[in-house]
Amino acid sequence: MTKIAMFTGSFDPITNGHMDIIVRASKLFDELYIGLFYNKNKQGFWDVATRKRILDEVVADFPNVKVITAHDSLAVDVARDLGVTYLVRGLRNATDFDYEANMDYFNKGLAPELETVYLIASHEVTPVSSSRVRELIYFEGDISSYVPQAVVKEVEAKRGKQDKI
Amino acid sequence: MTKIAMFTGSFDPITNGHMDIIVRASKLFDELYIGLFYNKNKQGFWDVATRKRILDEVVADFPNVKVITAHDSLAVDVARDLGVTYLVRGLRNATDFDYEANMDYFNKGLAPELETVYLIASHEVTPVSSSRVRELIYFEGDISSYVPQAVVKEVEAKRGKQDKI
Amino acid sequence: MTKIAMFTGSFDPITNGHMDIIVRASKLFDELYIGLFYNKNKQGFWDVATRKRILDEVVADFPNVKVITAHDSLAVDVARDLGVTYLVRGLRNATDFDYEANMDYFNKGLAPELETVYLIASHEVTPVSSSRVRELIYFEGDISSYVPQAVVKEVEAKRGKQDKI
Amino acid sequence: MTKIAMFTGSFDPITNGHMDIIVRASKLFDELYIGLFYNKNKQGFWDVATRKRILDEVVADFPNVKVITAHDSLAVDVARDLGVTYLVRGLRNATDFDYEANMDYFNKGLAPELETVYLIASHEVTPVSSSRVRELIYFEGDISSYVPQAVVKEVEAKRGKQDKI
Amino acid sequence: MTKIAMFTGSFDPITNGHMDIIVRASKLFDELYIGLFYNKNKQGFWDVATRKRILDEVVADFPNVKVITAHDSLAVDVARDLGVTYLVRGLRNATDFDYEANMDYFNKGLAPELETVYLIASHEVTPVSSSRVRELIYFEGDISSYVPQAVVKEVEAKRGKQDKI
Amino acid sequence: MTKIAMFTGSFDPITNGHMDIIVRASKLFDELYIGLFYNKNKQGFWDVATRKRILDEVVADFPNVKVITAHDSLAVDVARDLGVTYLVRGLRNATDFDYEANMDYFNKGLAPELETVYLIASHEVTPVSSSRVRELIYFEGDISSYVPQAVVKEVEAKRGKQDKI
Repeated sequence: MTKIAMFTGSFDPITNGHMDIIVRASKLFDELYIGLFYNKNKQGFWDVATRKRILDEVVADFPNVKVITAHDSLAVDVARDLGVTYLVRGLRNATDFDYEANMDYFNKGLAPELETVYLIASHEVTPVSSSRVRELIYFEGDISSYVPQAVVKEVEAKRGKQDKI
Repeated sequence: MTKIAMFTGSFDPITNGHMDIIVRASKLFDELYIGLFYNKNKQGFWDVATRKRILDEVVADFPNVKVITAHDSLAVDVARDLGVTYLVRGLRNATDFDYEANMDYFNKGLAPELETVYLIASHEVTPVSSSRVRELIYFEGDISSYVPQAVVKEVEAKRGKQDKI
Repeated sequence: MTKIAMFTGSFDPITNGHMDIIVRASKLFDELYIGLFYNKNKQGFWDVATRKRILDEVVADFPNVKVITAHDSLAVDVARDLGVTYLVRGLRNATDFDYEANMDYFNKGLAPELETVYLIASHEVTPVSSSRVRELIYFEGDISSYVPQAVVKEVEAKRGKQDKI
Repeated sequence: MTKIAMFTGSFDPITNGHMDIIVRASKLFDELYIGLFYNKNKQGFWDVATRKRILDEVVADFPNVKVITAHDSLAVDVARDLGVTYLVRGLRNATDFDYEANMDYFNKGLAPELETVYLIASHEVTPVSSSRVRELIYFEGDISSYVPQAVVKEVEAKRGKQDKI
Repeated sequence: MTKIAMFTGSFDPITNGHMDIIVRASKLFDELYIGLFYNKNKQGFWDVATRKRILDEVVADFPNVKVITAHDSLAVDVARDLGVTYLVRGLRNATDFDYEANMDYFNKGLAPELETVYLIASHEVTPVSSSRVRELIYFEGDISSYVPQAVVKEVEAKRGKQDKI
Repeated sequence: MTKIAMFTGSFDPITNGHMDIIVRASKLFDELYIGLFYNKNKQGFWDVATRKRILDEVVADFPNVKVITAHDSLAVDVARDLGVTYLVRGLRNATDFDYEANMDYFNKGLAPELETVYLIASHEVTPVSSSRVRELIYFEGDISSYVPQAVVKEVEAKRGKQDKI
């Protein structure tokens, strides 16, 4: 039986922490959806089209990984529509754990047939988060150790445009 | 490719918390070993033969689950010998998490090819632990809500012997 | 001497977690006030009149429980005015604890004669929070396991009105 | 209806942290038992008779407080025998909380009619523990800020005996 | 070699918790900068000029302590410009720790030559925070136990002006 | 004024986590004592002479670092005898923090003139502990990434002796 999983997030932007989970989950499951979830009424740091384009680029070499977008939906509902039977989540620290345990409980109530599988973030990437990366971009710090090359290029492209103005 | 996993513990005794993980992991993987690990120099609450017998009984109806025993070995070494490529662990709370994250780090150093997958304990069983069950057995409290029926029967059998004396 | 207590919150909306504390505290104290505290400048999910009406309904069968409202006041000041000598608080997890310990310290400075008594949430309701319930209402998930029936009816009434439009 | 409570511990020795809870709980309940629980097979730092004598001395001025001893029993069983309907526990920090929440769950299973009430330790005494006091006694540090005077006198008496030898 | 350190914050307003760290750090280092960091686009509780004036007043008697302001800058960049080689941070609780550990990691990436030194807040001031003090000011509670006298005078001056209106 | 510090531990054996703190603290202070504390009645994994010899070897190139031993003494008493005015401690995680905050409180009571300074462990070494290293030695796992070379050589020397028998 084919095992289909989904890994969700806002990926604003995608970090090496996300990549760590994607690489490992793509081996554990037959098919893996990367679900870019966003809220139509809430402005992100980067727009959804940019985030989607970068995601497509970084998973291009993974034949069993596919990017989808969804807005204003529960992950369990999107999972059901896609035939997904596993959610994949990364855990970085004890604070993550408490949040995830609560979400796990409610997801089981909403969709008992859906199982959630957790991977503990590799030690090298546990401090990395999208919010810290956004802060570094804002203060023009070096982000190249924390994100895929596609994100670095995007930042440079955006800065190039600003400089021209 | 067949996905073979192992779930280790001392199972002294097995609880409904262990059963929750075994049932769910047996669906996620093609084959699942229950690894009863013990220390030859450290006396348990129940002897290894008893624990093994109960484990065999409770997994009898799961065709893809098999019980093995190991002593004074690292889980990663036993995994390698058995062709296991996934370890399965249950997480009950934030304290569990910190311990597991540390173990995950060292296991990756010892066996980079081995992946560890975590399931968050179902809410109904998060308070249950073997140590609390042992305490209840010692004080003759009712354990039937926290362990498989085979453990209850074992306690009754042991008490029966004592009563006869 | 009559022991009068107060249990405060924004109850937006009331959950089974709140009910668990109300039922238990109503047995511990002679009289129990449910203090619906709100901030005049901050919009809630539901308006104060609706929340008050639901609270009145769910405590109708408890002869020693009474609902009051207060805005832009410290709990210790409202307590003093009502002759309350005990505050009651529920604790769900370690994060709750740190917040409550801090509040306890400042309340003792403001009102040394006021004692705060804590109950640990019953295991069945520890994952439940008003914020998670609001999220479920927003995404039209089923909330009936997490809130009193009066809240379910209110959601249905509000949806009915929307559908008619 | 008379509200009878019990506050248990090994009190080896009693500290100002214990006294903080005893004083406050003696006001909340009509009658309060201090339950000195010990294990017959485990040697304490001080013997049970000494601990009991000190407890009797420090609660002498509280008319509604009474010291009892119990060994190798569950608190819920002793409570039932004494007509106790409330257990009182002190909480010092988040680690205490996790332990207590687990105990609360099992106690509710064993004795649903018994309610446990928690007080957060007053800020001045949160760092104090019997184990730290024992360490200070062992290294001959000054304990007078952390324990009732009766404990200081006991230490001096024991040292006097040693000096004579 | 002269050891120059910086202690940063928004000091909105300064509390006895900040003072505890300043007094102790001024002994550990040869020179100590108090860095009042703010965000030009984010309104504080009090304006920057007021906060700066109070800081200058409370450190007036410390010959090796000097107040500077900075906005929209990373602490590591300001440190480099001032010849600072140590950052000083206070730790109040485990939650503080997790945040600080993350910041420490990124600061090491941005400025490997900069060392961060931590002091654990003295027990008397661990519950104190600027946010709780702001809340007390808002509700007109007594703040004199939690802040330097200069802050109390500022509150009185501001209230005096309001009363005249 | 010369700033003299002490970093204490049982160093059974010393790890790269200890080395991280020693290297950084040797820059912060004029003189640094490494205090090897042990308990005469408690057997360690390795004997004190071995641990002392390895410590001497690993700090040989640090001109301002000196190893001392002490048994059955409080760190504050040893510090006073040596003219030490700062203790240095490493923090790896939130659990470490709670223990250290408690110790800090009692040390301030015993020796108010002694200041304790904390460094957060560098990210690369946060998972490393002497207890995990001992476990790896016991199970004959590779420890070379977690300890100084002197410890690896000691393990090899001890194994060499065993093999000859």
